Amino acid sequence: MISQDEKKKRAAEAAVNYITDGMVVGLGTGSTVMYLLEAIARQGLKISGVTTSKKTSKICASLGIKVNDIDNVDHIDVTIDGADEVDVYMNGIKGGGAALLMEKIVAKNSKRNIWIVDDTKVHDILGTFPLPVEVVPYGSGRLLKKFNDKGLKPILRMDKNKLPIVTDGGHYIIDLHLNAIDNPQNLAEYLERQVGVVEHGLFLDVADVIIIGGDKNIIKERKNRMTE
Amino acid sequence: MISQDEKKKRAAEAAVNYITDGMVVGLGTGSTVMYLLEAIARQGLKISGVTTSKKTSKICASLGIKVNDIDNVDHIDVTIDGADEVDVYMNGIKGGGAALLMEKIVAKNSKRNIWIVDDTKVHDILGTFPLPVEVVPYGSGRLLKKFNDKGLKPILRMDKNKLPIVTDGGHYIIDLHLNAIDNPQNLAEYLERQVGVVEHGLFLDVADVIIIGGDKNIIKERKNRMTE
Repeated sequence: MISQDEKKKRAAEAAVNYITDGMVVGLGTGSTVMYLLEAIARQGLKISGVTTSKKTSKICASLGIKVNDIDNVDHIDVTIDGADEVDVYMNGIKGGGAALLMEKIVAKNSKRNIWIVDDTKVHDILGTFPLPVEVVPYGSGRLLKKFNDKGLKPILRMDKNKLPIVTDGGHYIIDLHLNAIDNPQNLAEYLERQVGVVEHGLFLDVADVIIIGGDKNIIKERKNRMTE
Repeated sequence: MISQDEKKKRAAEAAVNYITDGMVVGLGTGSTVMYLLEAIARQGLKISGVTTSKKTSKICASLGIKVNDIDNVDHIDVTIDGADEVDVYMNGIKGGGAALLMEKIVAKNSKRNIWIVDDTKVHDILGTFPLPVEVVPYGSGRLLKKFNDKGLKPILRMDKNKLPIVTDGGHYIIDLHLNAIDNPQNLAEYLERQVGVVEHGLFLDVADVIIIGGDKNIIKERKNRMTE
């Protein structure tokens, strides 16, 4: 039985096989992506990285990985990112690290998306992990009340000083403690309609490949990715 | 024939009739609302204002109108705001003053919405006024390209120093120069689905009353406002 960290590392190292020199690579955020960045640096891969958080940009700088702004590249070949939870349909929840907005912007602008997770993240249906919703600070109290009235069990995410955490984009995060999301598509559409919601952590029909690290890695591939 | 400013003033002064002492009143942004604020101050109405921009907050302070944060009131009785364009279905375009996000948050949290416009703002269909879309700065270049590919004629709004204007919420504005919007509902849904779009200037099914200032004021009322 290997540790969760070792599972993350195995998934991350398997993802390096999808990268070749010269590619523009979207780089996610979080502990599993950390192993990916180390592997990219160690192997000396010559990529142009597009990051999804200030945190990842800093790590890239320290490891000598070249970084470009998303608006200065004309495409992104592949994005590799973690996920907080994935279901059997290859949908996922992201945003535990409060980087969901930039992560989704990079993902939606990528030709291919690969997620790297350890096997504790996989569930039949989503919702065990609280769903992060990025919101405009102005009026966030009204949204909390509205979500509460709708039974969505919202909690404003706070930092250690009991102040609302502020994302890289200057927004707040409301976590919905749902336990089970029966219809992620319906919930996504509801959230997108709400004024004050900037983005939500449901990543539906985004991942093309999911590498699940465990005693033996499992690789899932989506055959027909829907396009908009 | 009266001037456009006189028309704005007449609409604004008629709107004061919808306000009584003790009400919580959402206060819009712009030149027509300026006349409203002056009338409220002149008549000494004792309201609690909820503003839609830093600009309106400043004007209220100078006129002695009490202002509250949206998250510190438990309801908003009525919001009075201008509009850049309105159609025969009482839908509108707002955001010429770059305050559309806070304006929509306040409007959607109000029991009643009253718009005050001069009669040059009224058209059979929307689109003469460029549609403002508030977007996250990160990746805004990709959105511009995407909107352009879709034929939406996008232009990033710049200030006099040729830098992107930044809204009170820290976002950019992309104006869509559409000339005619055949199906505002479809366009609204498309924009809401796009990652990076925070909000758009289509205010559909929001206004309960529109006061159109002219040689003689016209008052339009919506009978059955749809609720979510």
